[in-house]
This record gives sequence, structure tokens and C-alpha cells, in this order.
Amino acid sequence: MEGELSEALGRVLRLGEAPRLTVAGRTDAGVHARGQVAHADVPADSWAAHADTAPRRLARALPPDIRVRAIAPAPEGFDARFSALWRRYSYRVCDDPAAADPLRRHDTLWHPHVLDLAAMNRAAAGLLGEHDFAAFCRHREGATTVRALRRLDWQRDADGVAVGCVVADAFCHNMVRALVGALLPVGAGSRPPGWPSAVLAAAVRDPAVRVVPPHGLCLEEVRYPEPDQLAARAALTRRLRD
Amino acid sequence: MEGELSEALGRVLRLGEAPRLTVAGRTDAGVHARGQVAHADVPADSWAAHADTAPRRLARALPPDIRVRAIAPAPEGFDARFSALWRRYSYRVCDDPAAADPLRRHDTLWHPHVLDLAAMNRAAAGLLGEHDFAAFCRHREGATTVRALRRLDWQRDADGVAVGCVVADAFCHNMVRALVGALLPVGAGSRPPGWPSAVLAAAVRDPAVRVVPPHGLCLEEVRYPEPDQLAARAALTRRLRD
Repeated sequence: MEGELSEALGRVLRLGEAPRLTVAGRTDAGVHARGQVAHADVPADSWAAHADTAPRRLARALPPDIRVRAIAPAPEGFDARFSALWRRYSYRVCDDPAAADPLRRHDTLWHPHVLDLAAMNRAAAGLLGEHDFAAFCRHREGATTVRALRRLDWQRDADGVAVGCVVADAFCHNMVRALVGALLPVGAGSRPPGWPSAVLAAAVRDPAVRVVPPHGLCLEEVRYPEPDQLAARAALTRRLRD
Repeated sequence: MEGELSEALGRVLRLGEAPRLTVAGRTDAGVHARGQVAHADVPADSWAAHADTAPRRLARALPPDIRVRAIAPAPEGFDARFSALWRRYSYRVCDDPAAADPLRRHDTLWHPHVLDLAAMNRAAAGLLGEHDFAAFCRHREGATTVRALRRLDWQRDADGVAVGCVVADAFCHNMVRALVGALLPVGAGSRPPGWPSAVLAAAVRDPAVRVVPPHGLCLEEVRYPEPDQLAARAALTRRLRD
């Protein structure tokens, strides 16, 4: 997807070659991204000559599963990945045949049991804050698994679909899907609301937590600080991640 | 799809064999149906024994692209196909990169040019009423192509996607997709608003009308008369169609 976008951008801005993209959130295979952000360095004259027509020409050049909704010059110091303050993901679960829309099967998990969202929200509240999320992450040598979880809650949308909202400064590989995987058994009544917190406290991957399928998950939004804070934020993030 | 549903119903109601289904709207390949209606004759004791658990067990038995949202005994005289008063379809077209949601690519046509919905609505108004829609139908020997078009108009939804609403007593094969195919060039400015009416008046298939792809189309609703009118409506429809 990144390769296709980079190549289309190179063609549309007539750069001669595909520019290198830096992407805000690298999603696992099968995860959607409705609010992805990326940056690339391109010559000012190519930009000036082709900026106006770029969105429609990109739409023509790209396959239907990739769309560039807006494209604009970035402020000085902007880094799509390291300047980000936080990322917001959604996870859609349908637990009611009367609410099931087969047209949304590509971005909605079907769950055979009714979910108690109040119980899931009680459990989720115990996970908020800065913690070592090693219990919900795939271990990578030398990488920290400390993250600040700012929001994790569930509500039903107008159609009755349960939608989880997850916000953190950043996420480790598989982390959102493991968090959701720890909350669904609470919603279905097979685990008590205190279970996800106990898993977190153990700080080791718990095989009882099943990572949910990727297709219910979507990167919805990436938030950046005010322009004058972009470079400082990027420097700070780089230091924390290394 | 009909075969899979019939088989699942046979299993869930423990009928011994798959019941014969009568479906309200037989959709072309690739067309969605969010509001499909079907009926089947099943023994009263099988129904009584398994009705309560049927919706959830059907959800478990069916693939994710088929869901039974509700199941209930039908009033005397009900025929899912012949008792119907009208069918309502929607057709989704996105003409703006800023509004494009790749997650809806499975049920939304991408259109490279901005559409003038007011021009399309002027054109559509000229097609309303009872007419011989032979110009928009694939000809079938011995079948009438007279239909009553009750509604055909376009508006933008909250996301800016152009959504066409089409209501008729019934539709011939390909008819909605041909009607939309006659209106899109009006919206894009390559045909005048009077063109679709002129095509209708000619009453022969016009190769200039391009049948749009099936994936933007969805059967949304099938409306039936009050219970005491069901049998009379079915008898009338059978007479008209033969």
C-alpha cells in the first residue's frame, strides 16, 4: 500500500522516481486506516506545478482501496511519524443479528454472544495511563513496550454496533487487537472485569488473551501539536523510542 | 446465496431438507441486498420448537455476507415476491477524493468527475410514472417491460457521497443500473438533462447508455400492503406479470 501510494505520488507530481514516504501508523496486515498521515520530501517546483490537480489525479492513479483525501505542504519540522501526539483507532463488533449489516462485514467483527459494554468499560478503565504494555505486545528486542493509553471505551453506534475507541501516544505491534481480545471475554461474561488489569500487571504475554482479527480495526486519526511544537515533539519521541 | 440461506434454514429449524425459498427481489450478480425479504413454508412444530434461537443460530451457520435480521410467521396470503407493493434500491457514487472512504469501496462507485445532482434530479423527474422501460431493460421474450417508477432522485449523505434512491413496483433485469447509467453523464455534463427521457421515449435498448457496475447498488426495502390486502395484491401482480 505504501509502495503503491509512493509510486502514484511520483507519477502525479512527475518526480522521475517514487518519493520515500514516512507514515504515521504502520498498520498490521488486514487493518484499515481511514485517517492515515504520511509525509514525503518533494522539490518545490514539482509541487507548485501539480498541487491543484493532485487529489483527483491520485484518485485516478490509485486502486479503490487507497484514497488520498487531502494533500498539503507540511509546516517546518513536521514528521508524520515522530511529531504525532497520539493515534486514535476504532474497533467495530456486531453482536446482534438484527443490527448486522453484511455490507460492513469487511470492517466489522461478528461476535456470536451479546456483549455487556458497561462491564467492558469498567475493565478498560483499569488499563488507562502509562504502563508497560508488554502483556499486550509482541516482544521486539531493544524496543520499549511502555505506552500511555489515553482512552479506551465502548459505545453502540446508531445501528447498534459496538464501537471501541482506543487512543494512545503510540501502539506496539498487535497491541490494540490484544486489548480488544482481553475485553471481549469480559463483555461476553466469561472473564471478570478485573481480568485485563491482572493481565497488564503480570507484564508478560498471556496466551489466554486472543488477538482479535484485524478487519474490525481502523486507524481513524493521528493528532499533531501546533506547528511551533512539531520539531520538539519529534525530537522527544525519537529519544523515548530508542 | 439463496441456496446457502435455504440450507442453513433447513439445518436450524431441523427440517430434514432445505426448504424452497421465494425471494422478493432477485438481484443481479454483485448487487447487494440489505432489505431482502423471503418466505418459505415450514411445518408449524419445527417453527415452534426452534423459532426463539433461530436468528443467532442462523448467524452462526451463515457466512458473514449473509445475515437474517429477523424471522417471523407470515400473515395468511403473504408471498414475498408477488405481494410486494414496491422495492426501494440505493446507488452510492463518490465523486470527491476528500469524501472517499476506501472502507466503503465494496458498496460505492468511484466517479472521476464532480456530479451535478440538481441536473441529475431534473433528468430523473422526466422518467417518473408508468412507462415501457424497454430502453433500460434487457429484453426477455414474453415478459412485459412496463413498470411504475415512483421515485428516482439523488442527494448527498453526511459524508458527501451521492446516493440515488429508486422506487418502483418492480424492476426488470439491469433496470436500476441502466437508469443510473443514463443519469451519471447528465451529472458529469456530457449529456443534457433531457437525454434520459429521450432514451425512454425511443423504447429500444440504447447502447449509449452504459449499465453501471453492480457493487454501488443495494436493495434497501421491500414494502407490502396491510395483511388483508396481501392475497389480492399477489393475485393482481401475477396477472400483470404473465
